Amino acid sequence: MNKTKSIKRANQAALERLVGGEAVLIDCVPAREALGLTGRVVLHAGPPLPWARACATMRAAILCAVRYEGWAHDDSAALDLVTSGRVALAPCHHSGAAGPMTGMVTPTMPVFVVENRRHGNRAFATINEGLGRVLRFGANDERVVDRLRWLAAEAGPLLGAALRGSGGLDLRAIMAKALSMGDEMHQRNVAASCLLARALMPHLARATSDTAAVARLGDFLAANDQFFLNLAMAAAKACADPCLGIEGSTMVATMARNGTDFGIRVAGLGDRWFTAPVNTPEGLYFPGFGPPDANPDIGDSAIVETVGLGGFAMAASPAVAGFVGRGGMHEAIAVTEEMAEICLGEHPHFRLPTLDGRGTPVGIDVRKVVETGIAPLINTGMAGKVPGTGQIGAGVVRAPLSCFEAVVDVLGAHAGAAR
Amino acid sequence: MNKTKSIKRANQAALERLVGGEAVLIDCVPAREALGLTGRVVLHAGPPLPWARACATMRAAILCAVRYEGWAHDDSAALDLVTSGRVALAPCHHSGAAGPMTGMVTPTMPVFVVENRRHGNRAFATINEGLGRVLRFGANDERVVDRLRWLAAEAGPLLGAALRGSGGLDLRAIMAKALSMGDEMHQRNVAASCLLARALMPHLARATSDTAAVARLGDFLAANDQFFLNLAMAAAKACADPCLGIEGSTMVATMARNGTDFGIRVAGLGDRWFTAPVNTPEGLYFPGFGPPDANPDIGDSAIVETVGLGGFAMAASPAVAGFVGRGGMHEAIAVTEEMAEICLGEHPHFRLPTLDGRGTPVGIDVRKVVETGIAPLINTGMAGKVPGTGQIGAGVVRAPLSCFEAVVDVLGAHAGAAR
Repeated sequence: MNKTKSIKRANQAALERLVGGEAVLIDCVPAREALGLTGRVVLHAGPPLPWARACATMRAAILCAVRYEGWAHDDSAALDLVTSGRVALAPCHHSGAAGPMTGMVTPTMPVFVVENRRHGNRAFATINEGLGRVLRFGANDERVVDRLRWLAAEAGPLLGAALRGSGGLDLRAIMAKALSMGDEMHQRNVAASCLLARALMPHLARATSDTAAVARLGDFLAANDQFFLNLAMAAAKACADPCLGIEGSTMVATMARNGTDFGIRVAGLGDRWFTAPVNTPEGLYFPGFGPPDANPDIGDSAIVETVGLGGFAMAASPAVAGFVGRGGMHEAIAVTEEMAEICLGEHPHFRLPTLDGRGTPVGIDVRKVVETGIAPLINTGMAGKVPGTGQIGAGVVRAPLSCFEAVVDVLGAHAGAAR
Repeated sequence: MNKTKSIKRANQAALERLVGGEAVLIDCVPAREALGLTGRVVLHAGPPLPWARACATMRAAILCAVRYEGWAHDDSAALDLVTSGRVALAPCHHSGAAGPMTGMVTPTMPVFVVENRRHGNRAFATINEGLGRVLRFGANDERVVDRLRWLAAEAGPLLGAALRGSGGLDLRAIMAKALSMGDEMHQRNVAASCLLARALMPHLARATSDTAAVARLGDFLAANDQFFLNLAMAAAKACADPCLGIEGSTMVATMARNGTDFGIRVAGLGDRWFTAPVNTPEGLYFPGFGPPDANPDIGDSAIVETVGLGGFAMAASPAVAGFVGRGGMHEAIAVTEEMAEICLGEHPHFRLPTLDGRGTPVGIDVRKVVETGIAPLINTGMAGKVPGTGQIGAGVVRAPLSCFEAVVDVLGAHAGAAR
């Protein structure tokens, strides 16, 4: 079998595995338990990142996470723990999690458990904290910490009990439905968040007699149109992870950013990261902010683009195209059509009503990226680059082409060696 | 002032009143109390309808409603009460309500209370019973009656308590948001239903310590993507009613069908109905049903088209265009553009993301209907014409042109008399 044919066969297998995933939300438990975290560790977004190379926003979030865990009383003491190695840093992706923006996960934080029932693997994500001044965007004041404590003490256990009682909620079905309701599942998750809230309500009511706790969680859900984002990420990771290790495949199985480096992993090359410096998103800014205030690209959320959502599903969300500064319906469709040029196929479950039910483009082929020069487009929130600012807007960003070029070089060398 | 100018001015006033309505959901109470119903009365959809002219599906629903109220133990006894006048029949619209399909409202049924905060008037609608074999589609077995009793005994009082505790839910905001989420608010209400459920959750939890009742209502909400339809109708009526009586206006303020007659009321002509025989919808049928099984057009739900939703907002819902047998995105936009030809303006709050934020066409002008020959297009559910069948599909139907022609004749005479 020649090289082109074997790549084609491997990519077909990888794409089928990616789109065939059946993500089901089954529980919410502390990260320590779900991810097997031991000792003092802070998980962050993106590829591996030594403290010395972390941007200021990532650093602020890490120190706040250390304070939240009670390992230090102030940032100075927290800094000492991190720089001395007494608090370890590691990527979310290495522990089965996907973290939005800074991606903070620490042992006592509750995480949703998503099972891919087709392959038996699991992926995890924290509970979305809401918008604005929140830890994932680098905000780090007492209100941020108080909210995290409420999530751990009340919301997480209640969600866990409700989900266990439900027997599992079919995230793929919710996501497919939400795509027909204007969500692209990265910058816009209002439909999926509402569908989930409606599905959760009876299970929450059955899970506890503490109606005040249900009411507080209900208020929290009602105020957060991005609640579902973290679940979309965990679902995407649960579908993408089984593709890592399909020999010969040139399909991207992970895209992630840590505010310094953009990293990809490719199905045929297992756990190896290929990195390049991140770009900085451009888009629309909240009042009082502008391009100079934007932190460079950050977060594991690009896993949703990896499975055909986010920027790839822009045609589902003309409203998002406007929100992120990319015009209206025509431009939204153009983005999806451009992304189709670098993909292996169309998603059989994620369909676009504005394109008469066509599937979203899915399965990024590193060869097509390099051949066309079209870099994956990612819809993203924008964090302020001054620590503690929080979110300053939303926009789009391109993956750096050099990650993809490096993969093609390596795969070329592999093929040569195998001949 | 010449006649054309005075009509233009009156229509401008009517349109402003129509689109300026601020519909807020404030309560859920028994119809007896909300509508001031006294004695034994059954309200039905559409213009006034003597029993002798009612279709079989309407008759089956009326007799079932009489049984539900306990006024008779079987259909035969119920028939005797109705034909002898000991149970009265009257249109929903004459008591402030809007009823989907057969439109049944009886004194003990709970109704939602929608207040137009701009004008101080109120409108009412029952709680949507769900899909399939339900009273509004003419189903009439014991399960139908049991469900109605649960709505009256448990769901209605709980919803009322939650809504009173909420201080009111802004339906216009929910509807505007839902339009950006693929609802056209007649055949598709999944987004609005989910937004409402999410907003209700904390208030339901605070309204009672009976978590089992909340769980049952949560199950009911989660299983009914059309839950919001009745609320959209009450909101539409609350906005349209204040337009009745604006002298000289040729704008339609009511469209309603009773399965026999299609009726319209026009802003400039107050409470007077103009009727013509209904058409029969065409569309897609549930398995086992076809065109010969369809009941003629029925229901007050065309009030949503009257305020720029439903068929007029088809561009919001390419998925609905497919569901009702009208193709995809292109055809959906074509329907909205056709309806724009008979309307006075665009809705400032109800905007269409697929048309880059353009408002839905709103304010049907009887003169434009007659001049263009374009009859309003209505998205609708289809009832089986054999009593007890329930819903058999969904489709589209046109209003009969002769209603509009009759209005133009009358207005011409009026104008002549005034000169």
